[in-house]
Amino acid sequence: MLSMLIAGLLSASPDAPADTRVWPATLAEVIAATSEGDWRRPDPQHLLYLDLASGERVVIELAPQFAPEHVANIQTLARSGFYDELPIVRSQDNYVVQWGDPDGKRDQGEAAATLAAEFSRSSKDAPVFTQLTDGDVYAPEVGFVDGYPSARDPASNELWLAHCYGMVGVGRDEAIDSGNGSELYVITGHAPRHLDRNVTLVGRVLQGMEALSSLPRGSGAMGFYEDGQSRPLIRQLRLTADVPEAERIDLQVLRTDGDAFDAVIKARRHRREPWFHTPTGKVELCNVPLPVRIVD
Amino acid sequence: MLSMLIAGLLSASPDAPADTRVWPATLAEVIAATSEGDWRRPDPQHLLYLDLASGERVVIELAPQFAPEHVANIQTLARSGFYDELPIVRSQDNYVVQWGDPDGKRDQGEAAATLAAEFSRSSKDAPVFTQLTDGDVYAPEVGFVDGYPSARDPASNELWLAHCYGMVGVGRDEAIDSGNGSELYVITGHAPRHLDRNVTLVGRVLQGMEALSSLPRGSGAMGFYEDGQSRPLIRQLRLTADVPEAERIDLQVLRTDGDAFDAVIKARRHRREPWFHTPTGKVELCNVPLPVRIVD
Repeated sequence: MLSMLIAGLLSASPDAPADTRVWPATLAEVIAATSEGDWRRPDPQHLLYLDLASGERVVIELAPQFAPEHVANIQTLARSGFYDELPIVRSQDNYVVQWGDPDGKRDQGEAAATLAAEFSRSSKDAPVFTQLTDGDVYAPEVGFVDGYPSARDPASNELWLAHCYGMVGVGRDEAIDSGNGSELYVITGHAPRHLDRNVTLVGRVLQGMEALSSLPRGSGAMGFYEDGQSRPLIRQLRLTADVPEAERIDLQVLRTDGDAFDAVIKARRHRREPWFHTPTGKVELCNVPLPVRIVD
Repeated sequence: MLSMLIAGLLSASPDAPADTRVWPATLAEVIAATSEGDWRRPDPQHLLYLDLASGERVVIELAPQFAPEHVANIQTLARSGFYDELPIVRSQDNYVVQWGDPDGKRDQGEAAATLAAEFSRSSKDAPVFTQLTDGDVYAPEVGFVDGYPSARDPASNELWLAHCYGMVGVGRDEAIDSGNGSELYVITGHAPRHLDRNVTLVGRVLQGMEALSSLPRGSGAMGFYEDGQSRPLIRQLRLTADVPEAERIDLQVLRTDGDAFDAVIKARRHRREPWFHTPTGKVELCNVPLPVRIVD
C-alpha cells in the first residue's frame, strides 16, 4: 500500500518531467514506440497461474485494490490447493466460463466460508482513474484503474470494476454475501455490464483467454455441463509467488496511468489504419485493448 | 417488398386493435407470455443453413433490406455450391470467425466479383425502427429493425446494421468495393462497433453460434489458422429454400416491432430476477436478446 501511495504522489508531482513524446497513430506503432517505463510487472503475490489439464495456461491478475477480502481468500484457497483438480463446471455461450467445487464437499482450510460483498469501493484515495471521455450506457463515468476497466459515480463516490471480456468474478447465490472465491467465473462474451455492482469482481485474465473462451459450451441450462459431457479439468491453480522462478512467465502490462495508454486510447478512438473508411471517433470502455507482453 | 409494405401499413393503422396485454417482469416470463402473432418465420429464401463437417448446423438470416446486392450475390454463390467444402480460415479470439476460398481459385459462377459497398442505407422508407432509449457510445440513435441491431443518424438519414455478437459480414480488402460475399465473417466477441459502416453486414446467426464461437483460435496473425493447424471445414452452405422440407428446422424469431419485444427490452433494462441486487436501469444495444425458438 505504501508503494502505491508513493507512486501516486510521484505521478501527481508538479516536478515530474513532462512526457514530451509524440505518439504515432496506430496501436501497433504505439506499442512499438513504448519504452520500459510504460510497462509494469504484476506483483507475483497477485498473479495466478491457472493450468488446465489440457496443458494450457491462463494467467490472472488479482485486484486487491478493489476486493481485498476476496483476493485474500482466493490466495488462501490457492495456497491450500483447493482449486487443484477442480472441474470447469459451466461454459455458457457469449457469457461466462465458471469453475468450482460442484459438490461443495472439498475442504476450504483456513478460508472464510462467506464474505461481505465487495461490489464497489470508495473513489476517494483510489489509484489513478484514467477517464475515458467517450461516454457509457451503464455508468456516469468510465475509465481505467491499474489496468482494469472501471466505472465511477461522482454523486456517490463509488468506484467499481466493469464486466468486460476477460474479467474474473466470484460466483454467488442469491444472498449478496454468499460468495467467497471458491467459485470463479471469467467473462467470455459481450460485456454483461448489468452484472456490475451485482457481483464481486476480483481481477482479469492477462494471458490465455482463448483456452477458456474456446471450451465447448455446456448443453445444460446456463451452460452447465450435463451428465455425459466431460468437464474440462484444472490441473492446478497457483499463486505465481509460489511457482519456481524458472517456471514463471515474465509478463508485463502496459500502465494505464501514463501517456502510452492515452496514445492507445487515441489509436483506437480514431482508427488510422488504411483499411478503415469511416472512423467512428469513439471507443467504448470494453473495446479499449489492455496491452500485455511477454519478455523473453 | 409488397408484403413488407403491407405489413408496415397494417401495423401503423389507427384501426388496429391496441395491444392491451400486461407483460410480466422477467425475460423468461415475457417469452412464456407471448402468443403466435408475436413471432415471425424468416423467409426461406433469406435463410442459410451452414452445415459444418463436424455435424453442427448454424442458421443465418440474411438482411436484403440492408444489403440487397450482397444478399443476392450470396444467394447466387450458395446456389452454385461455391461455399461447399470451403474451410473456416480464421478464428480470432474475442473478434471473428471467417470462412472463404483461401486460394481464390474457386469458380464463382454467375456471382459478381466485386460489389459496391452497402455500409448503410437511407432511413427513409425503411422498416420499423424500434428505438432503444438507453443511449449508445458509437451512434446518435440505436434500435432494432426486423430483428437486427441497428443504428441511425437523423442528421444524415443513414441507417445501418450494428456489429453485435452473431452478426454476419462480408470480408473485404482495403478498397471498399472489394468484397462480394465469398468471404464471410461472424462476430464471436465483444461487439467491434468500430467496424460499423466500414464493412457490409448481411445478416445474423439465429442458431448454432456455439459451433463457431467455440472453434479453436488460429495461432497466426489475426487468428488465421497456420500450417499445421487443421481448418474446420464447411460441409455445405445452402439456402433453406433449397433444402427438402423434411430437413428444415421450423425456426421462429420474435418480432422486434411489437409489444412483446418492448417487454423484452424492459425486462433486460430492469432486471427483476431476485438474484439482482443493483439493477442498472439501462441496457446496451448488443445486450438486448433477440429471441429465437424452434417449433417442434
